[in-house]
Amino acid sequence: MAHQEKATSGVEWRITLGDGSSKSLVPEAGFVSRIWMGLKGLLAGLVLKVSKFLKKAWDLGVDDPRKVIHCLKVGTALAVVSLFYFMRPLYEGVGGNAMWAIMTVVVVFENTVGATISKSLNRVFGTTLAGFLAFGVHWVASQSGQEFEPLIIGAAVFLLASAATFSRFIPSVKARFDYGALIFILTFSLVTVSGYRVDKLFNMAHQRMSTIIIGTSLCILVTMLICPIWAGQELHNLISRNMDKLANALDGCVEEYFDHNGELKDSNKQPDKKLLGYKCVLSSKSTEESLINFARWEPAHGRFNFKHPWQQYLKVGASMRSCAYCIEALNSCIVSENQAPELIKKHLSNICLKVSSNSSSVVKEVAKTIKTMKKSSSIDFLVEEMSNTVQDLQNELKSLSNVLSPPEVLLAESKETKETTSTIHLLEVIPAVTLASLLIEISSRIQAIVETVEELANLAEFKAEVHDKAKQDQPNITRIAPCQLNDDQTLRPALERV
Amino acid sequence: MAHQEKATSGVEWRITLGDGSSKSLVPEAGFVSRIWMGLKGLLAGLVLKVSKFLKKAWDLGVDDPRKVIHCLKVGTALAVVSLFYFMRPLYEGVGGNAMWAIMTVVVVFENTVGATISKSLNRVFGTTLAGFLAFGVHWVASQSGQEFEPLIIGAAVFLLASAATFSRFIPSVKARFDYGALIFILTFSLVTVSGYRVDKLFNMAHQRMSTIIIGTSLCILVTMLICPIWAGQELHNLISRNMDKLANALDGCVEEYFDHNGELKDSNKQPDKKLLGYKCVLSSKSTEESLINFARWEPAHGRFNFKHPWQQYLKVGASMRSCAYCIEALNSCIVSENQAPELIKKHLSNICLKVSSNSSSVVKEVAKTIKTMKKSSSIDFLVEEMSNTVQDLQNELKSLSNVLSPPEVLLAESKETKETTSTIHLLEVIPAVTLASLLIEISSRIQAIVETVEELANLAEFKAEVHDKAKQDQPNITRIAPCQLNDDQTLRPALERV
Repeated sequence: MAHQEKATSGVEWRITLGDGSSKSLVPEAGFVSRIWMGLKGLLAGLVLKVSKFLKKAWDLGVDDPRKVIHCLKVGTALAVVSLFYFMRPLYEGVGGNAMWAIMTVVVVFENTVGATISKSLNRVFGTTLAGFLAFGVHWVASQSGQEFEPLIIGAAVFLLASAATFSRFIPSVKARFDYGALIFILTFSLVTVSGYRVDKLFNMAHQRMSTIIIGTSLCILVTMLICPIWAGQELHNLISRNMDKLANALDGCVEEYFDHNGELKDSNKQPDKKLLGYKCVLSSKSTEESLINFARWEPAHGRFNFKHPWQQYLKVGASMRSCAYCIEALNSCIVSENQAPELIKKHLSNICLKVSSNSSSVVKEVAKTIKTMKKSSSIDFLVEEMSNTVQDLQNELKSLSNVLSPPEVLLAESKETKETTSTIHLLEVIPAVTLASLLIEISSRIQAIVETVEELANLAEFKAEVHDKAKQDQPNITRIAPCQLNDDQTLRPALERV
Repeated sequence: MAHQEKATSGVEWRITLGDGSSKSLVPEAGFVSRIWMGLKGLLAGLVLKVSKFLKKAWDLGVDDPRKVIHCLKVGTALAVVSLFYFMRPLYEGVGGNAMWAIMTVVVVFENTVGATISKSLNRVFGTTLAGFLAFGVHWVASQSGQEFEPLIIGAAVFLLASAATFSRFIPSVKARFDYGALIFILTFSLVTVSGYRVDKLFNMAHQRMSTIIIGTSLCILVTMLICPIWAGQELHNLISRNMDKLANALDGCVEEYFDHNGELKDSNKQPDKKLLGYKCVLSSKSTEESLINFARWEPAHGRFNFKHPWQQYLKVGASMRSCAYCIEALNSCIVSENQAPELIKKHLSNICLKVSSNSSSVVKEVAKTIKTMKKSSSIDFLVEEMSNTVQDLQNELKSLSNVLSPPEVLLAESKETKETTSTIHLLEVIPAVTLASLLIEISSRIQAIVETVEELANLAEFKAEVHDKAKQDQPNITRIAPCQLNDDQTLRPALERV
């Protein structure tokens, strides 16, 4: 028995085989087939992982085909520059410096036109500046004799590399000239350290500069001519798209809270996604900043001239985010367990929905202003309407105090009224009141958005909407009206019922 | 007269000189001195601009001396590698490939250890992988004859460059292997296009790899040995510092609202800065993400082992941000013009201050847990205390409804009571009620922070606080108590006064 146990711990399957056919089920698989099973499992896992990765990549490509186009553009540019230097006669002409053209294309080619131009110019000017400085240092070092040469070169590299690295920490330099500083350090070190004589250096510098200029020109041409992606246009679209998302989220949140149509609970998925659109606004700050930095390098394109006030988009984005913070807080009211009683909800639902739909139509109008780059003729009217409904909401809240106080119960006569109202405390109203006051805050932040966009419209000299077009748009605004659901006539009965 | 006018528009000062001495004041300055004045102004402007820039740079250095140290480290590494290759015998040894070592140092050296290691490994593996693939393509192309060679090389460069560029869009690749993909494209193109024969290529590849490895090793050594900045440590500090800021902002906001000590209005600047600390939390998402990415590359250091759960910091950061959004909304209550009447403020101030100070001491305790990496012994107690005060606040709000309803005025006997209470409507209470309910929401979000940090403590196996140390900390907690300002005994009279 002891022997058997000992053996079991060692080579289990042989012992079990000898024990009887009933126990030999597992070992019957055998050593080879076990390994085979293991390998199969491993392979299946690998295939699954790879296919998952490929699926993700495919989805990414389908989701934004411009990414695929960008890749093909990079491939084209590289293939062209590679073949250009692969042809022997040309290759001999520029010598080993051919690699600088290829390197330039690989490093400089970016997704947007602005980023590519920014990197190209940074590369050209960084190289030029560093080259001239390095010539000077190189000449001084070579004049000062064998002994001091390494000392001077080491000190120069140390000092200038340190200074250039430090400049990359300064925000204004980092935003626009980060890559230039890097290239400056690189070129300066390479030229200073190179063992060539100064006259040979000039020859090399000439070749190198020409290859870099060929590389950057090719990049700029390809990025601007084949399906160009302008950082400015992207920024413009991002802002107006985010504004639409903000409007939809605001509408969706308030509707969800009052669950107005009873429809939302059935189709849970679609509104959820719409509802969380404001999160895009919260997280798009860094994207906006980098797009603004790139947009400033771009020439006039489409509807944007060279002096387009890109910096103003920063303010528009900030005002949108400040609004999105409030929607976040609003959203927490919705998911909160502490819900207001139905009676209060009913009392406030109409006016709150009206405020939210008016506010969101202001945001949508502002988004349209940005999209079309035309000053809206109806924005003042919409803002006034929003302010009026906010005033109505405040009045409604005032009248709410008549509904809820317990002492009123003492004055009430009918038993029915007592049953409905006696249960309502201030504590129970709080969620609804919080929602209402957040809505009021949101509407004031929306006014800030309107102001920043008006400033943008003035700076960028947006044209006024043509009058005919304004008339065409009018139905658009009244189309929103049905969402507002009711005017004062339908509101009154609800109030009186309470 | 006409003649004079014509002349005036041309060379104004001569005419005016001839007109009489009374008009010759301006031209007396003369042409040269005018230019001199202009130049002086230009120069002064330039000097001012440069000195401003230098001042900003100096402040930056003083603010964070580690940035200066980083620059000196880059300078040192570059000077060392430059001199290493400047010495002729060595230079001849590795030929023109010396530049690869310098380039590696320039490009790979980053601020944090993690970033440097990440770039180094990406560079080494990207180069190796691309090198092997390129050898294959090069060999196939050279076997297929003069005609097909450019075709095969062009197609290979196009396909692989496109695919590698596309992989850079996939989030998981972008986060960790972005630089590797770039280097892959670069090396692949360079090696494929190079006109060398395969046996010469092997020789060159060997030299190039060795220079790259020398460069990366030097970078990693310098970055790890001279005043290392660990991304993990930075992340850890950032999170605990932000948590302290969150706690201070919460305290500051509520104190400012109730203007408790009357001191805040005098020293306006200091609390303002403290108050806006939550904005750091709102804007630190991208910093956190990049630090997490770098921290994953770092070896065990300080109190962090290799398998430290860096990903969990993402969750902690998210929970902090969700809390900061609410503080943003809270802050809007404070700056709002629509303020609650003093009476209501007085009624709620004590309990609200208590909630905020209890909440913020929970956050501070959690920050301490992260800072010391020891499980707190008092956190459960503090959370319970926070929940209790939140419950008290809810009770207080319940009792508030007795104060404000107009019908109560009918029941009231004394004229004095009538005067004080008759003015209070629900509408006026709303700002205070909103503040209170935001405080309640904030406390629930703080609980979420506590949970994520507890998860972190379990994953990272934080040790429990030593009992003796817990005792030492106890006074620390009671030290906070005076800020809570009052318990129920002092709260009652305030209530009864109302």
